[in-house]
Amino acid sequence: MEAYMDNSATTRTDDRVVELMDKIMKEDFGNPSSLHKMGFNAEEYVIKALDTFSGILKCGRKNIIFTSGGTESNNTAIIGTAIFKENRGRHIITTVTEHPSVLEPLRFLEKRGWRTEFIDVDEKGQVDIRELISKVRKDTVLVSIMHVNNETGAVLPVEELSKAVHEANPECFFHVDDVQGFGKIPLDMKNANIDLLSVSSHKIHGPKGAGLLFISDRASHISPLIFGGGQQEGKRSGTLNVPGIAGFAGAAELMYKDIHENYRRIREIREYFAGEVLKIPDTAINGGEEVSPYILSLTVNGIRAEVLLHALEGKNVYISAGSACSSHKKKISPTLKAMGLSADEAESTVRFSFSVHTVKEEADYCLQCLNTVIPELRRFKRR
Amino acid sequence: MEAYMDNSATTRTDDRVVELMDKIMKEDFGNPSSLHKMGFNAEEYVIKALDTFSGILKCGRKNIIFTSGGTESNNTAIIGTAIFKENRGRHIITTVTEHPSVLEPLRFLEKRGWRTEFIDVDEKGQVDIRELISKVRKDTVLVSIMHVNNETGAVLPVEELSKAVHEANPECFFHVDDVQGFGKIPLDMKNANIDLLSVSSHKIHGPKGAGLLFISDRASHISPLIFGGGQQEGKRSGTLNVPGIAGFAGAAELMYKDIHENYRRIREIREYFAGEVLKIPDTAINGGEEVSPYILSLTVNGIRAEVLLHALEGKNVYISAGSACSSHKKKISPTLKAMGLSADEAESTVRFSFSVHTVKEEADYCLQCLNTVIPELRRFKRR
Repeated sequence: MEAYMDNSATTRTDDRVVELMDKIMKEDFGNPSSLHKMGFNAEEYVIKALDTFSGILKCGRKNIIFTSGGTESNNTAIIGTAIFKENRGRHIITTVTEHPSVLEPLRFLEKRGWRTEFIDVDEKGQVDIRELISKVRKDTVLVSIMHVNNETGAVLPVEELSKAVHEANPECFFHVDDVQGFGKIPLDMKNANIDLLSVSSHKIHGPKGAGLLFISDRASHISPLIFGGGQQEGKRSGTLNVPGIAGFAGAAELMYKDIHENYRRIREIREYFAGEVLKIPDTAINGGEEVSPYILSLTVNGIRAEVLLHALEGKNVYISAGSACSSHKKKISPTLKAMGLSADEAESTVRFSFSVHTVKEEADYCLQCLNTVIPELRRFKRR
Repeated sequence: MEAYMDNSATTRTDDRVVELMDKIMKEDFGNPSSLHKMGFNAEEYVIKALDTFSGILKCGRKNIIFTSGGTESNNTAIIGTAIFKENRGRHIITTVTEHPSVLEPLRFLEKRGWRTEFIDVDEKGQVDIRELISKVRKDTVLVSIMHVNNETGAVLPVEELSKAVHEANPECFFHVDDVQGFGKIPLDMKNANIDLLSVSSHKIHGPKGAGLLFISDRASHISPLIFGGGQQEGKRSGTLNVPGIAGFAGAAELMYKDIHENYRRIREIREYFAGEVLKIPDTAINGGEEVSPYILSLTVNGIRAEVLLHALEGKNVYISAGSACSSHKKKISPTLKAMGLSADEAESTVRFSFSVHTVKEEADYCLQCLNTVIPELRRFKRR
């Protein structure tokens, strides 16, 4: 038996997606910029993908650019906005719990004269909307807040936050890192007035190396991050990764077809898993009620996350200690710290992350392993 | 019969590469940053790819970063160097025949206070080394020159140019856009003292969406273009596109295994093709003797490139008018103009581009079609 419970780090590419990509790589391999049939055939996949995403995001084809993934999308949204608006203001607001692909471009900008303010979160991982609004200034050009936290699954009310920010400063752009939410937790794009939204393909059973950035009409002049042959109306140059884009769109279609049913089914698995895992003494689940069913953050007191991770690995159960993106760095998660966990608790926190491919049998196997491994590790420690 | 003669725009992904990518996407789909077995398995593909490329480029693993393609590599080399050296100088030299993914980031920098000087080329597409050296100043931070021109196949002596630039100013970085040369025309990386070198995967039968940037030890502190989770030692963040990287490396191995034999075989095809095509009246091949066997630039006087392209398309022969990257823009190629072609001649110039998959039968079929189509189009015009 095996249980891959690290779907927020990355997912298995869906067989149907792989099949489609195969066909494109071998048969319809043209460059969409080419003026002949091979080019047009390739371009058609891109147009079909644009239609898929514009349907999901309730926008036009021109509001979507394809990127190499969520990290590039976040960088483009932030650096692109900063450059576009540099003469109007250099104040940016975000939260302490954002992904490094949001925090690091901000750090880059700070060295070049921009100023970032960080909003704290409460023990449920939520931001105080009044605090947020109180920080919005006349020269605030961007607010960047994630939809679903990658470490805890906390779901932030980005629609509401976006509206509030725009009321406080109608000129300010609102960016959503939706890497952990897209395909899983629908957003009301029609009414939320979101300006920029980042999506990654490999978190939803699409291929690695693909992502998109939604750009609203009024944000259409943000600076590109990558310049060149003028593809994608000059907003992101470079030969379009046709198999990646088509595979990404295929995966998105599969996710959205049953998004509500998936949500209900995975929530059931998560609730069952949570109920069972809490029967193990001295464990706690982090986050409040507003949480993604796809992520469960668990503190197992007395056992370091990496030790638990490797013990489970020995039984073919794959989880994460903190988020995979920062797994090679040894520092305490700012997100867990902000939520009030002590250093010891944060270091004993692991993440289980589910996907539409997850079945109850895997949860059961994982629980069985936890029930074996945790007492063993604790006994060992006490000797 | 069919002849795909647009391999400088993009190539068919090799079956063996597709097979490898399939396996990774379905079985070894982990995130290389994950701390468990699934992560390590994925990381091994990346390490193997690094070993492939460090073998080819005679460098260490740490001298290679993977990108989303040639365009991102060129952008990173140029913008990354400019930012790294901004306090030492803001003067950059390049040629008029570079790819837009070199020219456009330079245009971006010009708006922000950098200054670019453009070296002209002669009728063979070559730069005058003395002119180049005469332009190198104390505050010149970067010289960027392509190895093989994408429109004409002109091969520039970048090893020699690199050495000369470094003699004139040892601090100046030398960047080579090797997108059309890598895997086809070997470079002496050991002795050329090149600081930065851009490579694309989909031009050598690898997948789209992958590329690399070679970064010499002394250039190791250029600024990243994309910031985030700190992957690739912070030089290019974002989840590594493992199937893309492994496929790219697989394709490179296949190219380098027989690089000299391929060169000889394709040169024979090109020479045969050139000899036959010149028998058609009022045609001319552009470029000198220093030319890639994989590219042939042909002027067919009296017929607009797009008209010829579409006539051949009707016979399943796929070529390019100008370079695919700028095919949607209607302006005269600066490269052909610099080489002394009139506007009429430039507008009547098409590109045939071969690959290791090209066979003589395709060249024959293409010639047969040209011999039918060109007289027809010319007759039609004269009426």
